[in-house]
Amino acid sequence: MAEVMERLHQPAVVGEIIAGILLGPSLLHQVQVTEFTKGLAEIGAIFLLFTVGLEAEPRDLLEVGWVAGLVGTLGVIVPFVLGFGYIMVQSHHNSIEAIFVGAAMVATSVGITARVLADLGVLSTRAARVILAAAVLDDILGMIILAVVSSLSTASGINYVQLVVVTVEAVAFTAIVVAFGSRVVRRLERFVGALRTRNAAFVLSVIICLGFSLASVYIGMAAIIGAFLAGLAFASYSRTWALDAHAGPVSEFLTPFFFVLLGVMVDVTTLARRETLVMVAVVTVLAIAGKIIGCGLGSISLGTKDALRIGMGMVPRGEVGLIIASVGLTLHTISDTVYTVVLFMSLLTTLFAPPFLRIMLRPEPDLPAPPGGGAAASLR
Amino acid sequence: MAEVMERLHQPAVVGEIIAGILLGPSLLHQVQVTEFTKGLAEIGAIFLLFTVGLEAEPRDLLEVGWVAGLVGTLGVIVPFVLGFGYIMVQSHHNSIEAIFVGAAMVATSVGITARVLADLGVLSTRAARVILAAAVLDDILGMIILAVVSSLSTASGINYVQLVVVTVEAVAFTAIVVAFGSRVVRRLERFVGALRTRNAAFVLSVIICLGFSLASVYIGMAAIIGAFLAGLAFASYSRTWALDAHAGPVSEFLTPFFFVLLGVMVDVTTLARRETLVMVAVVTVLAIAGKIIGCGLGSISLGTKDALRIGMGMVPRGEVGLIIASVGLTLHTISDTVYTVVLFMSLLTTLFAPPFLRIMLRPEPDLPAPPGGGAAASLR
Repeated sequence: MAEVMERLHQPAVVGEIIAGILLGPSLLHQVQVTEFTKGLAEIGAIFLLFTVGLEAEPRDLLEVGWVAGLVGTLGVIVPFVLGFGYIMVQSHHNSIEAIFVGAAMVATSVGITARVLADLGVLSTRAARVILAAAVLDDILGMIILAVVSSLSTASGINYVQLVVVTVEAVAFTAIVVAFGSRVVRRLERFVGALRTRNAAFVLSVIICLGFSLASVYIGMAAIIGAFLAGLAFASYSRTWALDAHAGPVSEFLTPFFFVLLGVMVDVTTLARRETLVMVAVVTVLAIAGKIIGCGLGSISLGTKDALRIGMGMVPRGEVGLIIASVGLTLHTISDTVYTVVLFMSLLTTLFAPPFLRIMLRPEPDLPAPPGGGAAASLR
Repeated sequence: MAEVMERLHQPAVVGEIIAGILLGPSLLHQVQVTEFTKGLAEIGAIFLLFTVGLEAEPRDLLEVGWVAGLVGTLGVIVPFVLGFGYIMVQSHHNSIEAIFVGAAMVATSVGITARVLADLGVLSTRAARVILAAAVLDDILGMIILAVVSSLSTASGINYVQLVVVTVEAVAFTAIVVAFGSRVVRRLERFVGALRTRNAAFVLSVIICLGFSLASVYIGMAAIIGAFLAGLAFASYSRTWALDAHAGPVSEFLTPFFFVLLGVMVDVTTLARRETLVMVAVVTVLAIAGKIIGCGLGSISLGTKDALRIGMGMVPRGEVGLIIASVGLTLHTISDTVYTVVLFMSLLTTLFAPPFLRIMLRPEPDLPAPPGGGAAASLR
């Protein structure tokens, strides 16, 4: 299915999710959600977020400056408010479900966007650099929101004290790792050199990844947040220690289990209800509009054309939104219907953006885009 | 623990198994045998055997000739007869347990032996080449024996018809893959080139590895046999398609789960019985003597010195013996005591051989060993 999607110029993850929907209990009955498949999928998600973290150097974020920061922040606030507001005006959904939907609409998929930009060969353009930096920021904000929402529970309603505690914990954990992670890892260099285990650096990074995941669970957040932060901490050494070359194949083997299980968890029968279809359509439109408006406003100083490109580049949701939804479903905080809506929103935004991006970002054949040397100053 | 073992010049797997024994239910109670840990361990074993298969090119086997064939065959027959005979003379063990113990004493660990030879820098010597080729043959014979024993069940006693059917199936599956596997994979070259999925060759090899594993289970054999055969089929293309570079990290991450669980499954209380300790000692001595006698006799034509080196080089058991034991325990075909005996036999033979090999194979400092050019002819 991944190969089929690649040939249709669509992201491979879409194929994997569709394979899961087909194999799942509501259609072919071949794969069930068991302790084993759930565990395998979770390890897949942990490795996925670890490799996403490895790709996202904190230093790049700090370099690209305020425009990306504004794009990322508005690109989080506008979709969240739209999603939260829409679910709140529905009579039969509670505020926790509304927070989950809003949260799932927040995070841009760095992986998918980076892939499309790389395929077009425009990674060095101004718009592309802003998109990537803002998407990384989005992921971090998305992780913080996930940390907060994963501590919510319908049973007791919203516990505001706990909400504040978890928010502080999540922000503190992230801030400490972003500020000191790289430095601590640099100190480990001599220690790693002294180890006799084969690929000691990779083994150590995996141990820290799993340790941080465990630590996240202990302080009440999702395991993948720790994995993402561990990736961030090792990002500067990803090339030097060949961590990407080692973590890549592991992620390539394990991640499909996660995406297939996301599909398996879809209850197709909920899609048959007209009400669900309307919700899918509205949430998807709000998700697209939220990013184009929020991110476009954030980058309007670069001109309308680049603002539109940046807005469209931030539309694909992918992994993080799906992870937030699966956390909600696993905790029984959101209904099957809301899970299905979020999943299809992620799929549809991911399918929607790439063709438009191709048209909007393709360099004009006669007028090659400038390398953006003069414009780079405005990014600071 | 793996790092500790490396520093003591012992194989890392020993450290992983000890970690499992410590964490297991009989000591620290931290890890249990659950559906999830069992599944993860099985995927680890599948990837381990896949990478072992990838390293073992069938062509090398055919090239190295009759000496290695004789060493491998006698090195299988003598330990099997010794192990089977010893258990049979015990009053309270049945013939199926005897077959399991014999089978677990058969297979030499290619990984550990190759590692020691590589560390000493003697991989190109005559003795080393015979050891490696014979060890690969051992693994294949061990796999066939495992295919046979995994179809046995204490409940019904030995079903001789089924025994013959499984033996024929296992031999046929192995023969077909060894004879045609490489050719079929070569035909896939153009197909792989046309795929758009990232690392298409690796993904395809993993699909075939898992498919063969499933096929093995369907015809009544252990899953790892299919994984090993899939590895064999892709062995000639392992370098060209960077399969080793991709499968290596996956195996490095997943395999420790297998070895740790092997330790977790040890019931330490059985070791407290004098009877078990005697069995461990006798079986270990028989396992060492069986290989030195069998493999020494097989290579006596190369002179006593090389015959002894080859015999000692074949002593470490490692993975395959442990896998056979774990299959027996999972199928409830062998008792906890017999499992513990086989596990400690594997551990002790693995610990025993490397120091002696170092002394016996180290090239004399003043008289550098000849590259073995003249002797190579006798290998054909």
